[in-house]
Amino acid sequence: MTSPIDTAQGRITPIILAGGTGTRLWPMSRTARPKQFLALVGTQSLFQETLLRLGGDTRYGAPVIVTNEEYRFLVAEQAQEVGIVPASIVLEPAMRNTAPAIAAATLIAARDGEERLVHVLPSDHLVTVDDAYRATLDIAERAALEGSLATFGITPTEPATGFGYIEAGEKLASGAHRVKRFVEKPDAERAAALIAMGDHYWNSGMFLFRAGDFLAECAALATEVLEAAETAVARACEDLDFLRLDAEAFAVAPEISVDYAIFEKTALAAVVPSPIVWSDLGSWDAVWKSGARDADNNLGIGNVTLNGLTRSLVISQGHHVVVDGLDDVVVLASEDAVYVGRLSEAQAVGAVVKQLKADPQTRHLTEIHRTSYRPWGGYASVLDGERFQVKRLFVHPGKRLSLQKHFHRSEHWIVVRGTAEVQVGDTVRTVRENESVYIPQGELHRLGNPGKILLELVEVQTGSYLGEDDIVRVEDEFGRS
Amino acid sequence: MTSPIDTAQGRITPIILAGGTGTRLWPMSRTARPKQFLALVGTQSLFQETLLRLGGDTRYGAPVIVTNEEYRFLVAEQAQEVGIVPASIVLEPAMRNTAPAIAAATLIAARDGEERLVHVLPSDHLVTVDDAYRATLDIAERAALEGSLATFGITPTEPATGFGYIEAGEKLASGAHRVKRFVEKPDAERAAALIAMGDHYWNSGMFLFRAGDFLAECAALATEVLEAAETAVARACEDLDFLRLDAEAFAVAPEISVDYAIFEKTALAAVVPSPIVWSDLGSWDAVWKSGARDADNNLGIGNVTLNGLTRSLVISQGHHVVVDGLDDVVVLASEDAVYVGRLSEAQAVGAVVKQLKADPQTRHLTEIHRTSYRPWGGYASVLDGERFQVKRLFVHPGKRLSLQKHFHRSEHWIVVRGTAEVQVGDTVRTVRENESVYIPQGELHRLGNPGKILLELVEVQTGSYLGEDDIVRVEDEFGRS
Repeated sequence: MTSPIDTAQGRITPIILAGGTGTRLWPMSRTARPKQFLALVGTQSLFQETLLRLGGDTRYGAPVIVTNEEYRFLVAEQAQEVGIVPASIVLEPAMRNTAPAIAAATLIAARDGEERLVHVLPSDHLVTVDDAYRATLDIAERAALEGSLATFGITPTEPATGFGYIEAGEKLASGAHRVKRFVEKPDAERAAALIAMGDHYWNSGMFLFRAGDFLAECAALATEVLEAAETAVARACEDLDFLRLDAEAFAVAPEISVDYAIFEKTALAAVVPSPIVWSDLGSWDAVWKSGARDADNNLGIGNVTLNGLTRSLVISQGHHVVVDGLDDVVVLASEDAVYVGRLSEAQAVGAVVKQLKADPQTRHLTEIHRTSYRPWGGYASVLDGERFQVKRLFVHPGKRLSLQKHFHRSEHWIVVRGTAEVQVGDTVRTVRENESVYIPQGELHRLGNPGKILLELVEVQTGSYLGEDDIVRVEDEFGRS
Repeated sequence: MTSPIDTAQGRITPIILAGGTGTRLWPMSRTARPKQFLALVGTQSLFQETLLRLGGDTRYGAPVIVTNEEYRFLVAEQAQEVGIVPASIVLEPAMRNTAPAIAAATLIAARDGEERLVHVLPSDHLVTVDDAYRATLDIAERAALEGSLATFGITPTEPATGFGYIEAGEKLASGAHRVKRFVEKPDAERAAALIAMGDHYWNSGMFLFRAGDFLAECAALATEVLEAAETAVARACEDLDFLRLDAEAFAVAPEISVDYAIFEKTALAAVVPSPIVWSDLGSWDAVWKSGARDADNNLGIGNVTLNGLTRSLVISQGHHVVVDGLDDVVVLASEDAVYVGRLSEAQAVGAVVKQLKADPQTRHLTEIHRTSYRPWGGYASVLDGERFQVKRLFVHPGKRLSLQKHFHRSEHWIVVRGTAEVQVGDTVRTVRENESVYIPQGELHRLGNPGKILLELVEVQTGSYLGEDDIVRVEDEFGRS
């Protein structure tokens, strides 16, 4: 953990969208930990890199982060790890696409005044901070101060078919252009034609505007969205570090993207031509393009040996992976699954995920990783036996699990790092490194880390039923009892 | 374990060569557990399938098995598992190629008389037992009784370049042919020409002869080989279930194959045309050819999903492996490594193994598996942490580990199946399922399985040094102290 980054002076409130559930980067991304929370390139997750990019720029204040119930602890923990204190972590009670989420977050940002600048951005894109990037931001900020709702139009580097395009019209004083029209995702031929025109840009899904301007356009063009968002925010309740939007009010909001609801209709839309180094990492192909490739055009990450391989992506998160004498392949080895396919057809992963999801035997491979994260730390399953399993647990300093019991299993805990405070029945005792403790079936127990360093345990569970749902929580510090 | 198979009446002594160390089927085969001991297709290892093939045929007596020090417990255990009681398990003190090993084993078989028939065969080939196979054996047996040294010449099914060829000459009364000549491994063009002649067969490395005839030819053509073998057998010592050849005497034997030393020189060589279903499984390509392929010509074994894949081999021993939209690939996922390459160039695995062996970081991947086998059972490493590791141990009924101690680690044992007898210091106690025991650093201890079912434990080791070599064996039942 780093010391908090000072965002008190920033004049722009970032709104970070961190609720996406994409699994296009399977087997690394799963429903329980999608792309934005993974460290795919480098040691920080994309969400953390986004936070650090903003935290390193004095124009930004503390971010408003929009996510959902399932990712709230991930968001809080990953923000804390990089020393960013959010202005708010807003929880969407349901997925209603981007318009209601952005409207609600903008209402929260507008508590600092209608004149407040807001920068809406996804949490899972890769951006290089350089002079071109800073110049682009300057133009977007001036455009917003002119009264425009600014979009960032990435200068195309190839006839991509995975993005919508924005056609730029007349140039404004800020350096941005009035938007002439939005173009749906084109086919390859049309994409080439659009690029040849020189005035079409990729729609990046990033926006910069004055809160009041956006809300006024909402009122005019998407009344129902705004009304639902206003009620959901007004009735929101604080829960620990989170702001939980009112579920009933939010459910009434139309499910619609901010592009359809506002940007394609408003006369205020401007596009900022953005000659920046950017990737949405929307497929393994995009990950390969954005990485540091070797002389044979390969990107290898982790424990890999590449022999006579060309134009390929190989990532391993554990196993030693050897790839030999092939071209244009993607080989991905996660903790529990391996994917091998053609790199140039990397979008095929989507169909595979659908297929695995449809089969009860393989569904879990699309949903969870072997390591699960919890508000107090987490655990990884390391061995599944018959009537026993072994897990590795880690508990953050100062955190405690719930007071709980299990009907069908007993547990042996061996502390391998740090110091544990363990309650079994009515007795509380300290368990040190290389000591163990036994929790009989049905006995109330609680595990905490009273120390200053991470606590690590090996847990051996034995019993006839070892499912995660055999748990009775009697008391919990995270509102889960 | 099965009840022993009765081999008392058999008139042929099989000599099974089970000392090979090949790693051409990496990542599944490793130096510590080569191909013959793996269950690649089906539930038995190739060695066990060989034992069962012989055990199911009344012409065979108990086998003489030739192997080396390192594989002796594997051989004994796998034979026991399928209910075969070997006549002898002969340990080669050094690798001297096939001539000295076969000479020594034939001398042992000849203790039942010089007239004894001997069938020499590798332990890692796949053979289908059918009428053609039985008819071929009948001819070979008649040829041996005629006084020939019979070789089995497999009827070629393609112009293979991986085998030597045998040219058949005049037909003998038995149905075998006198050998005209042996041909070295040809190139593809020459292989095609040889096949076109119709009288050339693959050299399978299997032989059938009368012990006395072979030893007489040895005396005439390979005197040094025979003399070294005679001394090594005469001075051999019995060690538990094993016959350990005398190292000093055996070391004097020339390192030479039985083909070069005897068969290419003798006038008694005969070839039995063998129209049998046979594979040496010498490469992944051969495994693919010998397996039950699907309509797309794929062979998938284990936890695999194959999508739009053609002419490929995919094997998984753990991870779920998805292979998507490729042709002619081999994807192999073992417990700790993944290999992806072109199936039609499957011999490239050899170069990869050399490369991994040369690097101290990856050498272990060619030598050992995550599961190690010991005379008492075995263990698999399931988690390597910083200053701790977790292993899964299994102990066969009635077996005991050595009385031992470790200077640098303590151990926690949790019994998850069966019953353990544990000695710590001077105290011996019974540890039952779901009970645990702690072994402090430096304390003498011993683990045994007094029960009738497999004992399984989870072991958590903690300490500053966790290498396998931190062990002092005070007493051992397997001659290792």
